[in-house]
Amino acid sequence: MSEPIEFYFDFSSPYSYLASELIDDLAAKYGRQVKWRPMLLGAAFQKTGSPLLVNVPLKGEYSMRDFSRSARYYGVPFKFPPKFPMATLSAARAYYWLHEQDCRKAREFARAVFRAYWVDGRDISDAGIVLDIAASLGIDRNALSEGIATPAVKERLRAETDGAIAKGMFGAPYIIADGEPFWGADRLPQIEKWLATGGF
Amino acid sequence: MSEPIEFYFDFSSPYSYLASELIDDLAAKYGRQVKWRPMLLGAAFQKTGSPLLVNVPLKGEYSMRDFSRSARYYGVPFKFPPKFPMATLSAARAYYWLHEQDCRKAREFARAVFRAYWVDGRDISDAGIVLDIAASLGIDRNALSEGIATPAVKERLRAETDGAIAKGMFGAPYIIADGEPFWGADRLPQIEKWLATGGF
Repeated sequence: MSEPIEFYFDFSSPYSYLASELIDDLAAKYGRQVKWRPMLLGAAFQKTGSPLLVNVPLKGEYSMRDFSRSARYYGVPFKFPPKFPMATLSAARAYYWLHEQDCRKAREFARAVFRAYWVDGRDISDAGIVLDIAASLGIDRNALSEGIATPAVKERLRAETDGAIAKGMFGAPYIIADGEPFWGADRLPQIEKWLATGGF
Repeated sequence: MSEPIEFYFDFSSPYSYLASELIDDLAAKYGRQVKWRPMLLGAAFQKTGSPLLVNVPLKGEYSMRDFSRSARYYGVPFKFPPKFPMATLSAARAYYWLHEQDCRKAREFARAVFRAYWVDGRDISDAGIVLDIAASLGIDRNALSEGIATPAVKERLRAETDGAIAKGMFGAPYIIADGEPFWGADRLPQIEKWLATGGF
């Protein structure tokens, strides 16, 4: 059986959000699973000395246009949020705590967090809002609140971020299929060809 | 009649080369013309403070892999050249001088320069090699040699580069269709949808 596809993302990354809406269906076409792995992109930006995309002269303005246009191209609902970038520590930790309990629920939660931010513009840096999103999915708010404060969960997020960087991650989404890394939602067609052909 | 699509590129840009192999056929499917506009990407990088892609930690190594993989994906011959980046002043000036004489010949020359560099690894920073490439297409070597030294041609290249930056260009290829800017060979599918639908 083939290894799952690794999908590294940051909830604060617009192209990660676009990929999140598309990648499971793409993988399923080829009978493949996807491991969702939130991480903190800021750590990679420090490593590579990369500035925040939207702050780069000319490129930043283009990017704002490209985010929305790419969302329309893929048919994904999208509204640039009032607050950007967004601290995603609580949301990412919540994901890993949930993942230990119920990996399907964790995926459902991740989708809800992405949409809360990238469609509804909610402030997902606020742990209270992260807990509200979880509660709306029937997740025990108090248990999650305690869970995200545990050293094990904090360490897990750190380890996933470091692990992604060790695999060459410098931006998001960063998707690894059969050892081959792909960066960006715009590489989904290449990923599809890779899965369809076993590499090219 | 629709305006031509503007295709801004630098001969030293691998993704520009990939786009150059694809864009005319794509445009022709929708009855559209393409204006090829070489410019000096370094001027835009100065403006945006962008480092050379291949020198960025992690991203650089990924990019080297992505160049070749993207070429295979598109079915375009590609071999990373021994010398990179490449000064493209002479080749770009030669293009504009030829364009004044015969715009079809200029396009043929541009394709040949791209392939000389991105397939055959020739040193296109060498004006002698640029003249050799032109001569192999039946272009008068001496006339071209004099042409690229004229103030008008030098000024034309400067004006095209400045004009591209004024239109928001920060990287290459930078393609403008009906006023909408698209950056990167990976945006060709979006350009196709744009041409097919009149914008989306």
